[in-house]
Amino acid sequence: MHSRSYGAIGVAEICERAGVRKGSFYHFFDSKQALTVAALRATWAAERIRWVETLDLDPGVSGLERLMAQQVDSQRDAQRIGGSVTGCLYGNLALETGAEEPALRDCLREIFDDQTEMVRGSLITAASTGDIPRERATPATARAVIAQLEGAVLFAKLYDDPATLDDLWPQLSGLLTASGLETHSSAGARTD
Amino acid sequence: MHSRSYGAIGVAEICERAGVRKGSFYHFFDSKQALTVAALRATWAAERIRWVETLDLDPGVSGLERLMAQQVDSQRDAQRIGGSVTGCLYGNLALETGAEEPALRDCLREIFDDQTEMVRGSLITAASTGDIPRERATPATARAVIAQLEGAVLFAKLYDDPATLDDLWPQLSGLLTASGLETHSSAGARTD
Repeated sequence: MHSRSYGAIGVAEICERAGVRKGSFYHFFDSKQALTVAALRATWAAERIRWVETLDLDPGVSGLERLMAQQVDSQRDAQRIGGSVTGCLYGNLALETGAEEPALRDCLREIFDDQTEMVRGSLITAASTGDIPRERATPATARAVIAQLEGAVLFAKLYDDPATLDDLWPQLSGLLTASGLETHSSAGARTD
Repeated sequence: MHSRSYGAIGVAEICERAGVRKGSFYHFFDSKQALTVAALRATWAAERIRWVETLDLDPGVSGLERLMAQQVDSQRDAQRIGGSVTGCLYGNLALETGAEEPALRDCLREIFDDQTEMVRGSLITAASTGDIPRERATPATARAVIAQLEGAVLFAKLYDDPATLDDLWPQLSGLLTASGLETHSSAGARTD
């Protein structure tokens, strides 16, 4: 599901690849959705360990920079080993998932909430050491960091070019230290 | 294809919904990919007019703010009218598309290149009037603006909540004015 879409892969194909019968599949999982949720939880549980290590090793801004460098490396590795940039498994599934698959959607929400909370921890440390302004250490900024990562990885996948990610940290670095523009209240109003 | 995945929809279903026979479909389009490319080009051609109007009406930062407000409104409208946040059609397809559909991928690259170039025009104006620092008016920053939009819309879709987009402009406003962090050269190095 990392390189092809969730919707395009059926239980029959999963069973064939895994060398199991459909009957056996349904003995363990109610549906493709249930298998995917189990796989996602396992993937994030493993990946989460590295996130914790990285952010704890180096609390604050440098840990975040290191975490982002790891994300970029993993896209580079995917291209070197598998031949193409695969993007973010969670992001890919998030854009495919709707209300018709609530368990999968809830699982993805939990993963992104968890990531956001971890980034927020680093922001709080960074603010306490004066590396970023105190008003930037918010849940909203943490969410924006993950959003920038997801958007940048989307482009790396679309252009099949990990080099597009070279600019990720400079841009995030801007996002974290920003003072912001003067407000233009009229333009921000609803436009229709 | 806005609310369900590209991979999950077949030509048979498209024909049934449109009330045409498969033979007729293949008279006009070689494949689902060819239909999708034609539909995307038409959608962006129409949407592009609004982008141009918005950015030309108000060159620089306010036009950008207005453009982003329109994007947020369109997600709000999708939820009000269709019952759920549908996300960005181009972003949804970008995460589903790979090397096996080169025409679709090229079409999406062109659309995002076009959007990036338009945003860059506004950044250049904004820098010339002193609203943003001159060093922020780059193609990379324009790309980061679109990446931030795509990432934020991904979350609006996943959480089915347009209110998550209320923070988009404040975050972008930061991204555009940012001075950036002190560099931590060791952390940015390849980590494995």
